[in-house]
Amino acid sequence: MSGAPWYFDCDTGIDDALTLGLLVAEGADLKGIGSVSGNLSAAGGARNTLDLMALMGRPDVPVAVGAHDPIGGVFGGGAEFVHGANGIGEVELPHVGEPVAESAAAMLVRLAHEHPGTLRVLAVGPLTNLALALELEPELPSLVADVVIMGGAALVPGNVSAVAEANIWNDPIAAQAVFDAAWPVTMVGLDVTMLARFEESHRTELAAGGAAPAALAAMLDVYFQYYTPILGRPSCALHDPLAAAIALGVVVPTLAPVAPVEVDTTDGPGRGQTLVDLRGRFVGYPAQPDVRHTVPLEIAEGFGDRLLESLLRLP
Amino acid sequence: MSGAPWYFDCDTGIDDALTLGLLVAEGADLKGIGSVSGNLSAAGGARNTLDLMALMGRPDVPVAVGAHDPIGGVFGGGAEFVHGANGIGEVELPHVGEPVAESAAAMLVRLAHEHPGTLRVLAVGPLTNLALALELEPELPSLVADVVIMGGAALVPGNVSAVAEANIWNDPIAAQAVFDAAWPVTMVGLDVTMLARFEESHRTELAAGGAAPAALAAMLDVYFQYYTPILGRPSCALHDPLAAAIALGVVVPTLAPVAPVEVDTTDGPGRGQTLVDLRGRFVGYPAQPDVRHTVPLEIAEGFGDRLLESLLRLP
Repeated sequence: MSGAPWYFDCDTGIDDALTLGLLVAEGADLKGIGSVSGNLSAAGGARNTLDLMALMGRPDVPVAVGAHDPIGGVFGGGAEFVHGANGIGEVELPHVGEPVAESAAAMLVRLAHEHPGTLRVLAVGPLTNLALALELEPELPSLVADVVIMGGAALVPGNVSAVAEANIWNDPIAAQAVFDAAWPVTMVGLDVTMLARFEESHRTELAAGGAAPAALAAMLDVYFQYYTPILGRPSCALHDPLAAAIALGVVVPTLAPVAPVEVDTTDGPGRGQTLVDLRGRFVGYPAQPDVRHTVPLEIAEGFGDRLLESLLRLP
Repeated sequence: MSGAPWYFDCDTGIDDALTLGLLVAEGADLKGIGSVSGNLSAAGGARNTLDLMALMGRPDVPVAVGAHDPIGGVFGGGAEFVHGANGIGEVELPHVGEPVAESAAAMLVRLAHEHPGTLRVLAVGPLTNLALALELEPELPSLVADVVIMGGAALVPGNVSAVAEANIWNDPIAAQAVFDAAWPVTMVGLDVTMLARFEESHRTELAAGGAAPAALAAMLDVYFQYYTPILGRPSCALHDPLAAAIALGVVVPTLAPVAPVEVDTTDGPGRGQTLVDLRGRFVGYPAQPDVRHTVPLEIAEGFGDRLLESLLRLP
């Protein structure tokens, strides 16, 4: 499926930067990239995306600025404590190119019409642009091959509350719209992304690579600082890259039941949680007709090695 | 601690019946038992409790009828599909004795005053009586040694919704009051109770025991019917007995972090969920000052064998 046309939606972001690297290294046919507020503002994320794509030798891919605010809310200011003030760990890249004039949601709708039935959507930030695109074009689900998101948590704790993961937390209403729409959604959540790790040894090897790998390694310094007390050693989780790897088929989850996902859009303590009905776990998660959500729960070890191998191919 | 005085709160119920058996067999010093609506009505639960205690040779223990309705709600009618219409799998026992005149909540408050600082509370139904007792006597937490409940789910699915366990679901407001009170609470939830199993071989051995063991084995026929499609073979989970075993020290969980628990009392999709903050899982669940909630997550195998051994001691 890596020959398929892709729309990529991101909030670049250190692990988004690694993801751009993986997509480029694996030769994904990127037709367009939209940004959304999350790790930083949508405008800042588009800037980082343009600069990184140029550094990686792909200044040709159009980048659209997406939604600044979540549906029915106001952007909360991002996660400087995770990704640094500029979103990419204070690494300064040459500014190359400008975003296109259309919005990210409009870009997604246009690409879906240009590649009906084959466009694949990978979204690793809050799902605001996808929800807006569904409003713009109610037929969108029938035009898109599938949607893979990084977000949510099924049987593990959240990362912004006891139960909520940041991307869903940042726009629960948009997430609910994406899960409700009639397209297949693979939810790559914390169940598996917290198991996917980059270690200090990976970072050291990456730093010895070309300009793009070295820049990514420099960003990871900041990301490692955030994750070291959480993980108990210098390392980080590979949230967004794992979603891309699963979408690309580079990683095949060892357990990924089909199960309905509902989002908590209340203002209660569960706000932003993805409620995944996994009650069939003792009998091998029996097939549930009409359910379109796939939730990876287990992956094999070794994704850090595989990601490093890909990233070292970048210029 | 099994020498301590005990107040036991239950909604008897097939696994409650096994729990009464375990408590009697282990010689727990039961000062009183309260019933609450859950698996069946509070009145029906008291009836079953009296009859079972007589069958087990302990007609001396006072039994109080507790709350019929949850706080701010109306009793939903019980779980006949799990426990049978009479709550004990249609097994007919001789009716022996009558409930005492005081309410379960009043009994709990009285016993706490009679045994200040030493009374242990084990509650394996909805937590309505405990919440009412906290209202009757705000000093209750300082009079009680500890509270062990069967209820909730931390990192596993629920059993009445994707995320909610039945006891908490049946009275979320009461559960929140119990977790908020200044006493230590051990939450024995589905994380461990679904791992504690009675197999067909256990049931067969139990059926060959005395009158009480044989009656319990007969009840288990109905309980097994409910659990067989969930577990994939004739067997059942040992929810309430495991809570008693952990309270008695008969089972010592192999992993039981101290972590804050919050209950979802909204009307959203997460209603009745116990939200347990386990975000410290990668660094060994560091101590959290002022947190009073202990949440067993892992137990060793073999509780079914141990429970059988105890129950076979009954007359």
